[in-house]
Amino acid sequence: MERFRIEYLVTCLDGETIQNKALGIALEQSVELPTSVLNDWIKENTAGRVESVEQTGEKTYLVECSYAISSVDGDLTQFLNVLLGNISLKPGIQVINVDWETITDWFPGPRFGVEGVRINLGIQERPLSCSALKPLGYSVDQLADLTFQFATGGLDLIKDDHGIADQRHAPFIHRTKACVEAVRNARDLTGKQSWYLPNITTKGSKLMDRFRQAEDLGAQGVLLSPQLVGLEMMAELAASDVNLPIMAHPAFSGNYLGAADGFSHSFLYGSLWRAFGADFVIYPNHGGRFSFSLDECLGINQAALDPMVPFARTFPTPGGGLDRNRIPEWRERYGNDIVFLMGGSLYKHPEGIKAASAEVLAVLENRV
Amino acid sequence: MERFRIEYLVTCLDGETIQNKALGIALEQSVELPTSVLNDWIKENTAGRVESVEQTGEKTYLVECSYAISSVDGDLTQFLNVLLGNISLKPGIQVINVDWETITDWFPGPRFGVEGVRINLGIQERPLSCSALKPLGYSVDQLADLTFQFATGGLDLIKDDHGIADQRHAPFIHRTKACVEAVRNARDLTGKQSWYLPNITTKGSKLMDRFRQAEDLGAQGVLLSPQLVGLEMMAELAASDVNLPIMAHPAFSGNYLGAADGFSHSFLYGSLWRAFGADFVIYPNHGGRFSFSLDECLGINQAALDPMVPFARTFPTPGGGLDRNRIPEWRERYGNDIVFLMGGSLYKHPEGIKAASAEVLAVLENRV
Repeated sequence: MERFRIEYLVTCLDGETIQNKALGIALEQSVELPTSVLNDWIKENTAGRVESVEQTGEKTYLVECSYAISSVDGDLTQFLNVLLGNISLKPGIQVINVDWETITDWFPGPRFGVEGVRINLGIQERPLSCSALKPLGYSVDQLADLTFQFATGGLDLIKDDHGIADQRHAPFIHRTKACVEAVRNARDLTGKQSWYLPNITTKGSKLMDRFRQAEDLGAQGVLLSPQLVGLEMMAELAASDVNLPIMAHPAFSGNYLGAADGFSHSFLYGSLWRAFGADFVIYPNHGGRFSFSLDECLGINQAALDPMVPFARTFPTPGGGLDRNRIPEWRERYGNDIVFLMGGSLYKHPEGIKAASAEVLAVLENRV
Repeated sequence: MERFRIEYLVTCLDGETIQNKALGIALEQSVELPTSVLNDWIKENTAGRVESVEQTGEKTYLVECSYAISSVDGDLTQFLNVLLGNISLKPGIQVINVDWETITDWFPGPRFGVEGVRINLGIQERPLSCSALKPLGYSVDQLADLTFQFATGGLDLIKDDHGIADQRHAPFIHRTKACVEAVRNARDLTGKQSWYLPNITTKGSKLMDRFRQAEDLGAQGVLLSPQLVGLEMMAELAASDVNLPIMAHPAFSGNYLGAADGFSHSFLYGSLWRAFGADFVIYPNHGGRFSFSLDECLGINQAALDPMVPFARTFPTPGGGLDRNRIPEWRERYGNDIVFLMGGSLYKHPEGIKAASAEVLAVLENRV
């Protein structure tokens, strides 16, 4: 029976042996019974299996387990369960890789990815710029005015703050109409089309409708917090007939990034969210107001853009306190296939948002 | 403007002051901008606010922040975002309480709860027993046969293993029909009605259908892994017109239980899942194959059953390696409003599952 593989970084705690711990993972994530009460057919077929163990430190090991294709059968929620269901409750087990080649068909991957986004935006090589509309409490008119300022300054992507949903201050439909109009008006003035990406994050039963509304109202993409709505919901959107790119926001996802548990940074944002259909993955950049290391950020970029993975490439989108004045330095480190997401740094510009956006564009187009 | 409160346990890291960190939480979870760029209306209304700070240890503090009711407006996904969206990415911040009284109307709470389940089962006072059908790979006939053995032995609740979904080995509809028939046949033989709870966990667009199918096919409840499907999906089921209790499984939830991050054990399983509609909350018992402390387990029970919270009470359901021989001891500790979930311990009984179930019933009915 065909199998797929998951790779873990395993840390043995006091009293644990790697043999028992590795076998424990394979059984916990499949049959949930000790080998002694399994019949031969189950042992040979649906039980998880330890494929390899390699020591990497005093207490740490790379472990590879395999699972029956039939234990998932293309159900992505069940895939997440095999990936980290019960072992999310056990310390010292971190998922770091999956052999996507074997199970490519289960996943949508990004509909557009780096190449598709570049074609639609008409920007071939340089990094992209992005900002967020905020704060929560602004009216539709205030948010549309911000959108117009960002867009006339030349910012590429303008998204809602992820905390702006459908509150009374600026309801979704009214806001989307107004901000779409703002980027159109800016284009008529400057000739440059910025994208507006409304935040569609909401309950599962409404989510697809809101995705479709975003398209119908003329938005060029959407913002979604996949861990808030359930990760498979993103895959459902990416596989639907609505033709918009998805920018994924990390709200409610940080707890999966344990030092020795959960997912590695690169796996969660660069691999898993890519497989589940994110065209952009936002993550908190090193040196901002969150706590990712430079290596973790580089790892996310590498995984999101890895050409060996059988999905379209995803745009890494570092943000969370990114300073507009440091763009050249980050470009040097991260390369051109990157989106710089700036918030406060543009809002605080002494000459205003339009001037700040124009400065950013000039830097990205190498005009300064 | 009306506000609601969230309580955090905050740990200051080197170089952090509690004043800055507490204000950082309030702003991050609302307006996501520094105070300096906010206008007076935003500051007074939609910006989060630090209400109180109390030092509890050298580096730890109880912090209470308040947020505008209008920042959520009844959208539960947005509630989760205010609760732990961006601060899930920051170390040393753990959510430990919410003032449910202020925002009761947003949440369904358990449809049945402890009282409703007891009425429907016809069991007034004693703890309930539960087991799981497994392993993955068994056919429908094999799983139905197990169900019949558990039920004729007198087990109260028989649920699918959470890894059994809709795989080819035992597809959902076929399996549900057969296991419902098995508990009926057992009732005809013994006079005691056991409940069969199929696992409905799957993608958002199919979930409500599967919930309804479970009811149409005669199941007495369902199993759901809320963190796999997105927590608000559980609330949607609990608020729907399908009249079945929901047993919530902790798969994919463990990473939210950081030592100083995420949610406290009691808050996640006892409070949050209760508000979102779980009639039962499964958690790994102390001393089993997972790693919860006795205090953490007692905390979950206390929160799930707290009569001061404005929702029906939720049945705590400890499992994960619970030994049938230790039931009297756990009953002494946990009281009668509890469900003992046993798997391997019943499967390994030398005289088989029916005998094991009968022994458990005798213990719970004080006949031994």
